[in-house]
Amino acid sequence: MRIVVLGSTGYTGMMLIRILSSHPDVSSIVPVSRSAAGRRVTEVDPGLGPTVERVLAATGGRFVAIEDGKPDEASVVFSALPHGAAAKLVGPLVGSVPIIDLSADFRLNDAAIYETVYGRSHPCPELLDRAVYGLSEWNRDRIAGAQIVACPGCYPTATLLALLPFADLAESPAIVNAMSGISGAGRKETQDLLFNERSENMNAYNPGRTHRHVGEMEQELARQAPLEVLFTPHLVPVKQGMIVTTTVRLAGDLSREEAESRVREAYHGSPFVGLSPRGIPQSRDVRNTNRCDLGVRVSDGHLQLFSAIDNLYKGASGQAVQNMNILLGFDEAAGLRVHGEF
Amino acid sequence: MRIVVLGSTGYTGMMLIRILSSHPDVSSIVPVSRSAAGRRVTEVDPGLGPTVERVLAATGGRFVAIEDGKPDEASVVFSALPHGAAAKLVGPLVGSVPIIDLSADFRLNDAAIYETVYGRSHPCPELLDRAVYGLSEWNRDRIAGAQIVACPGCYPTATLLALLPFADLAESPAIVNAMSGISGAGRKETQDLLFNERSENMNAYNPGRTHRHVGEMEQELARQAPLEVLFTPHLVPVKQGMIVTTTVRLAGDLSREEAESRVREAYHGSPFVGLSPRGIPQSRDVRNTNRCDLGVRVSDGHLQLFSAIDNLYKGASGQAVQNMNILLGFDEAAGLRVHGEF
Amino acid sequence: MRIVVLGSTGYTGMMLIRILSSHPDVSSIVPVSRSAAGRRVTEVDPGLGPTVERVLAATGGRFVAIEDGKPDEASVVFSALPHGAAAKLVGPLVGSVPIIDLSADFRLNDAAIYETVYGRSHPCPELLDRAVYGLSEWNRDRIAGAQIVACPGCYPTATLLALLPFADLAESPAIVNAMSGISGAGRKETQDLLFNERSENMNAYNPGRTHRHVGEMEQELARQAPLEVLFTPHLVPVKQGMIVTTTVRLAGDLSREEAESRVREAYHGSPFVGLSPRGIPQSRDVRNTNRCDLGVRVSDGHLQLFSAIDNLYKGASGQAVQNMNILLGFDEAAGLRVHGEF
Amino acid sequence: MRIVVLGSTGYTGMMLIRILSSHPDVSSIVPVSRSAAGRRVTEVDPGLGPTVERVLAATGGRFVAIEDGKPDEASVVFSALPHGAAAKLVGPLVGSVPIIDLSADFRLNDAAIYETVYGRSHPCPELLDRAVYGLSEWNRDRIAGAQIVACPGCYPTATLLALLPFADLAESPAIVNAMSGISGAGRKETQDLLFNERSENMNAYNPGRTHRHVGEMEQELARQAPLEVLFTPHLVPVKQGMIVTTTVRLAGDLSREEAESRVREAYHGSPFVGLSPRGIPQSRDVRNTNRCDLGVRVSDGHLQLFSAIDNLYKGASGQAVQNMNILLGFDEAAGLRVHGEF
Repeated sequence: MRIVVLGSTGYTGMMLIRILSSHPDVSSIVPVSRSAAGRRVTEVDPGLGPTVERVLAATGGRFVAIEDGKPDEASVVFSALPHGAAAKLVGPLVGSVPIIDLSADFRLNDAAIYETVYGRSHPCPELLDRAVYGLSEWNRDRIAGAQIVACPGCYPTATLLALLPFADLAESPAIVNAMSGISGAGRKETQDLLFNERSENMNAYNPGRTHRHVGEMEQELARQAPLEVLFTPHLVPVKQGMIVTTTVRLAGDLSREEAESRVREAYHGSPFVGLSPRGIPQSRDVRNTNRCDLGVRVSDGHLQLFSAIDNLYKGASGQAVQNMNILLGFDEAAGLRVHGEF
Repeated sequence: MRIVVLGSTGYTGMMLIRILSSHPDVSSIVPVSRSAAGRRVTEVDPGLGPTVERVLAATGGRFVAIEDGKPDEASVVFSALPHGAAAKLVGPLVGSVPIIDLSADFRLNDAAIYETVYGRSHPCPELLDRAVYGLSEWNRDRIAGAQIVACPGCYPTATLLALLPFADLAESPAIVNAMSGISGAGRKETQDLLFNERSENMNAYNPGRTHRHVGEMEQELARQAPLEVLFTPHLVPVKQGMIVTTTVRLAGDLSREEAESRVREAYHGSPFVGLSPRGIPQSRDVRNTNRCDLGVRVSDGHLQLFSAIDNLYKGASGQAVQNMNILLGFDEAAGLRVHGEF
Repeated sequence: MRIVVLGSTGYTGMMLIRILSSHPDVSSIVPVSRSAAGRRVTEVDPGLGPTVERVLAATGGRFVAIEDGKPDEASVVFSALPHGAAAKLVGPLVGSVPIIDLSADFRLNDAAIYETVYGRSHPCPELLDRAVYGLSEWNRDRIAGAQIVACPGCYPTATLLALLPFADLAESPAIVNAMSGISGAGRKETQDLLFNERSENMNAYNPGRTHRHVGEMEQELARQAPLEVLFTPHLVPVKQGMIVTTTVRLAGDLSREEAESRVREAYHGSPFVGLSPRGIPQSRDVRNTNRCDLGVRVSDGHLQLFSAIDNLYKGASGQAVQNMNILLGFDEAAGLRVHGEF
Repeated sequence: MRIVVLGSTGYTGMMLIRILSSHPDVSSIVPVSRSAAGRRVTEVDPGLGPTVERVLAATGGRFVAIEDGKPDEASVVFSALPHGAAAKLVGPLVGSVPIIDLSADFRLNDAAIYETVYGRSHPCPELLDRAVYGLSEWNRDRIAGAQIVACPGCYPTATLLALLPFADLAESPAIVNAMSGISGAGRKETQDLLFNERSENMNAYNPGRTHRHVGEMEQELARQAPLEVLFTPHLVPVKQGMIVTTTVRLAGDLSREEAESRVREAYHGSPFVGLSPRGIPQSRDVRNTNRCDLGVRVSDGHLQLFSAIDNLYKGASGQAVQNMNILLGFDEAAGLRVHGEF
């Protein structure tokens, strides 16, 4: 098992290396980074312990440029590149090696919607129908043989896992309010993300239907039943974590017990998704794990759904590895953490 | 001006002493605390600078028991006591001295609703019609001559200031999602409020119609137009701060510009409430101030409202002092901070 | 391998269950708790994923009282009980089962010093010479066959790992300044540890020679060379993490390169302790790992030492499991995390 | 009173505008910023409440370029520009208007030391002897008539206020360990200062004699008695706050009581500096105030000193305004906050 990781120096790339280096089926990781090529991985990311050297032996423990990484000869290629760059770099590899992409480039089926949402034409629209939306619990069968797995964004992961079991019972629009840790915004060097600007601070942003993730949420909901989403994300001073509170008007009767049964049935046999023992989950419970803890309440003809994930783990790199496990036929839970914090 | 503060060692009591000791019209504060009687105020609360001694001279800089505080001879009495205890202690004073109460005891007009919400009968139901709900911007006239001002909770303050200008245009229920700093839960010594349990953590609690504040929100909305509230509070790792995101289906047409005009008109001449220059406010903007910054958006037939306050300041002690200013005929803004953090 | 954990509901107990449940050689854990006996472990600690049920099968996933835990029939007993309680409960077990104790009860060789430091007479002084001080890297041989392993406190772990290689070169006193995350103070429900009292706050406490850990530091240093310690701990708003900055006057010449060589030699072959690739370590590098990252500088005849650990992991439960690995002849690194955060 | 502030968009500039706009003797502030010239101040810094417009009326509430600010006609000019830029811009103004500079450019008396420390020759060495080191409590007389007040760095402020009363009794070197909030590093858009890199993280940096502030500490100590400083700063996840722990070997006998008397005498009549009621101060006590709280302990022939300040307030902008008050003959405490947090 030789794995190539493109874009290894952002938060999702660094998380991928952490998870993969402890994975029982992974023997070799090739860390690709344009900006850090030639540098030692443990110097750029001193959080990695010295044992990481073993799985990085192929490159002498160093980042390499993409042309030295030979991605086309890998067992699988992970791409943690930014939107736009991802499609351009992995496009030529499609067909020769399975691609697990963490960007938004292959999430939307429709190139026209992509252009509307991302403000540019898609670099390789002909590949869109070869991509599978990698919400693991809902698309296992299609992920198994996929050429491209388009891993969901963190907001859609937490929202869809809660909402999909109820799509047929919900009236539009679903009112979705999400609270994200700051790492969801990436490792950008901007004033808005400085410690001093985010500690003791919180705010909503891009409310209603303006956030880019609305498109992929509605696309995947429509597989069950069409449902519009009014989505409002909020930033809170947490490093890794996300909770989502969803409120929908019910189209029919539903008790809390029936709602909980639906969740149990939907995720029966899923190692990572289920009802929180608390009733309403807390983000610390799932920090640094691949879990999504859920809760449900019914109130005055409305259903309220509560979900908690780690935005970098189940919301990004963990789910990507889960998809690799499914794609390559490993135990779905292999190498993935399940115990959070207290 | 001699002011008595009952319950001076909780967060709202300590904040009251900070604000009042810098107030231009206050010459003497009598800090009452059963548990700390006899102890020096600056030892119990070392955040207070030594100049506080001047306004505390009447008690030699020490907390006193209520019987030594002579509340009936004060110019005004603030009560920062817990629910239940407040009504019992201030009840006998009503009529002889103006009361500004920060508990929930006088917020609800109806003793039956109080009993339902708080699980016990009201200690002095005969006083309820002598109390005015102290949402300063909406009740100035009635506060001016009040015998009891019942200061709103922090959640209702942030929610109502955003929602009241639109109550006539909103369809039930309003979906209100609030995020509160931890100080909103008070100074209770419980495991759930330990630093280790709250840092890197967030969660919803008491969702739907189960939170005690729903009653006072719907009571005050009904003065404009009846509107039900589905209210879901969340705890986030912030010390002082609160943001509220409210979504309502519009009963008629409304543009963003019209919505902003409504806000401007509603708060014309109000020194503390207005539209955020950001469009959507951030909680740091108003930290340690009496401001409430607002934002509005219209999306797909729905109105979204954004509010930010400091839960301990405008959400509690600051608004209480604003009410004192109105009650006693001082400049409404006297002694109250307006510059937040950056 | 059946393991009994006494005192499973504090932070170190919960961390022990996390580590042991992922340990390749552990098949059964018996979680003992007086206060939580009978309750489901995943309800008391919802951070634990559902897979924990497998290793908890012996008690049906529930906490049990000590008499139902049959500690004398276990392969090893961990005690995460408070000082004083630990000695009383594990004392009777000594000799029949290996004990790994995380309290201070068996750290000091000398019952008289124990009495001075802890203000009470030792409950079983006759057992003190059967205990080994469990600083893994320095006492491997003695830990291997021990009846009692007394795991070091978090402050001594970080301090001694840095200072021991230089004890012979240092003049008294070593000036040791430590900064600890709040979890080091345990899960006590006190006002001082509330989120609101610790966020945006830091302070020194128990400075000089007044902290209880000074005794065990000087005891262990004396095995190399007598050295007095002026120790000043500080609390900072971090959940898990500790850094220690030590300054000593050098008794002879030493270059930075020589100092680094000493560290490399002292920890050659140690999987968890070594020089940080940064030069000076950061606490995030080792968060949630069993590592201790070190740094050294020489300045004007003084040596400065920098160490970083996770106070709950290498500073408590991780080192305890490392000691179990040594005691029972497993791979020293088995089950222990080495990749920190970024 | 017309005040010009150069460099108004960094943290110290924004704090200056907050303090000055509430100052009883200030009627007009001219905010100068090259990068933000023409923009509304309340849009760039929405934390400022709308009442700030009054004192900004001269520029219509907008930032202006320096040439439009007419600094030479002001009552006083504050410079919050970076090192190097400050001397170049305020140099030409010296003599025509009093300058209060927050950079390092005029702190060192000796241009040769400046060149060594800052790695470039001083832009206007001929002005150095016209500058007074603005540690308010120790240089009141010289500040009163100064042409340039060079405000101390935050580390020297906290260190010197603790150490100066004991300089004659201390043996070299003083071991100074400081812990700073992140705002001390300024508003630079670098990866190291992102929320995700600083939360749950702490580290020492530039230890020993490598930090730039060592020069000004030793210069000012030498006015009392020559004393070398081994200075090690640490970054901790706090926005505003600083504590310093200093350990020195005593050259003679000194009891804790005598040490406390020395502090009381040194700061008799000083409104902002004194012994903490806690014994050892906490940084929250002085957050957002101009206070420096101190503590002393004597242990085994060593003196330990504890100081707490807000690095942006007493450590920068607050002390700058204190110096303005002294320079212009106002009440030294005018406009400066004394009540911290709880």
